Amino acid sequence: MLTVHHLNDSRSQRILWLLEELEVPYDIKFYRRDPHTKMAPPELQHIHPLGKSPIVTDEGRAFAESGAIIDYIIRHHGDGRLQPDPKSREYDDYVYWLHYAEGSASLPFVIDPIARGFGKMATPLQRRVDYELDLNLKFIDDCLARSDYLLGGELTAADVQMSFVGELAVTFRDASPYANLDAWVARFQARPAYQAALERGGAYGFVRQPAA
Amino acid sequence: MLTVHHLNDSRSQRILWLLEELEVPYDIKFYRRDPHTKMAPPELQHIHPLGKSPIVTDEGRAFAESGAIIDYIIRHHGDGRLQPDPKSREYDDYVYWLHYAEGSASLPFVIDPIARGFGKMATPLQRRVDYELDLNLKFIDDCLARSDYLLGGELTAADVQMSFVGELAVTFRDASPYANLDAWVARFQARPAYQAALERGGAYGFVRQPAA
Repeated sequence: MLTVHHLNDSRSQRILWLLEELEVPYDIKFYRRDPHTKMAPPELQHIHPLGKSPIVTDEGRAFAESGAIIDYIIRHHGDGRLQPDPKSREYDDYVYWLHYAEGSASLPFVIDPIARGFGKMATPLQRRVDYELDLNLKFIDDCLARSDYLLGGELTAADVQMSFVGELAVTFRDASPYANLDAWVARFQARPAYQAALERGGAYGFVRQPAA
Repeated sequence: MLTVHHLNDSRSQRILWLLEELEVPYDIKFYRRDPHTKMAPPELQHIHPLGKSPIVTDEGRAFAESGAIIDYIIRHHGDGRLQPDPKSREYDDYVYWLHYAEGSASLPFVIDPIARGFGKMATPLQRRVDYELDLNLKFIDDCLARSDYLLGGELTAADVQMSFVGELAVTFRDASPYANLDAWVARFQARPAYQAALERGGAYGFVRQPAA
């Protein structure tokens, strides 16, 4: 059976969600971040040499990298669900979102806390990071102005892959200028499969708080 | 005709290389980095809202994100070349490399100059970055111990996508502990198609210097 090596408060939460959406049976092996350093425990390196969450094992092989794992699950266990027809124009957009999430979109979110850590010394860097965050979040928000999900009216694995970016946005930024993005996060977090994945995966720090 | 919006010294150089390998005709539109800030010019945002190189236009559409562009070119213009059979196990590895390059692998290379910029204040961050760079370069080096290219004896688009990581490694790090990686960079940079892309794309700062 497919096993998700699941690190708390990490990118692996969305893999559980994808599997719940597909109703594919899976096991979870739990790993805890070091409470002090927040780093993944070294045991994850026994599963894949880079030791980064998510890792999925299936039929004796270990798979890493969120976008590649999602693509793998969809191709091997999806039966054509949660993806556009591979011959359609939408499929090109689908591949774009799979890459964009952990390529350009995540980067300013990773650099932001580094810049904050250096305080006033990092003012030029912080300005650049804020510009990039706004540029990217506006771009995503504009795409979501047209439809409930990134590729139209129905959820696809592109939304699952992009969900972590949306969750970072509503957790660490003021999301009010990005109303479509904000509503999209609320929409996908309300899905029964998302909730089922939360139930199985345990506490997750990036759940959108309802507006006061 | 397919057009590569090409920024000097950037990730778009490998797109030219891929097109030369495939012998697909293409146009180049040239963009220059700001000599002071090194940033891409705002004109790139007229082609795609995020304004990051590479961008490719084809049949009236604009495509961004290296991994997605490479996947697009292979699917639409590759006729099955430079990729494993989509039904094979190697195809899963191929998708992994396409995602890994701009996901986990590039990240420490982006943070490294930031840490350096803060000097001694950034010692703990620099230690972490150095650890991650070594972990990733060792991983890539180990994979290349088995064969000339990432997926075996023949070049695939996975090598093209990963080439920028290899070039960063030999340019900014001491590559001598990673002899297989070092030899792989020399090997792919010697290919006629790579050289033809250099010729068309103009000066490129990440060409491996021959050992003294």
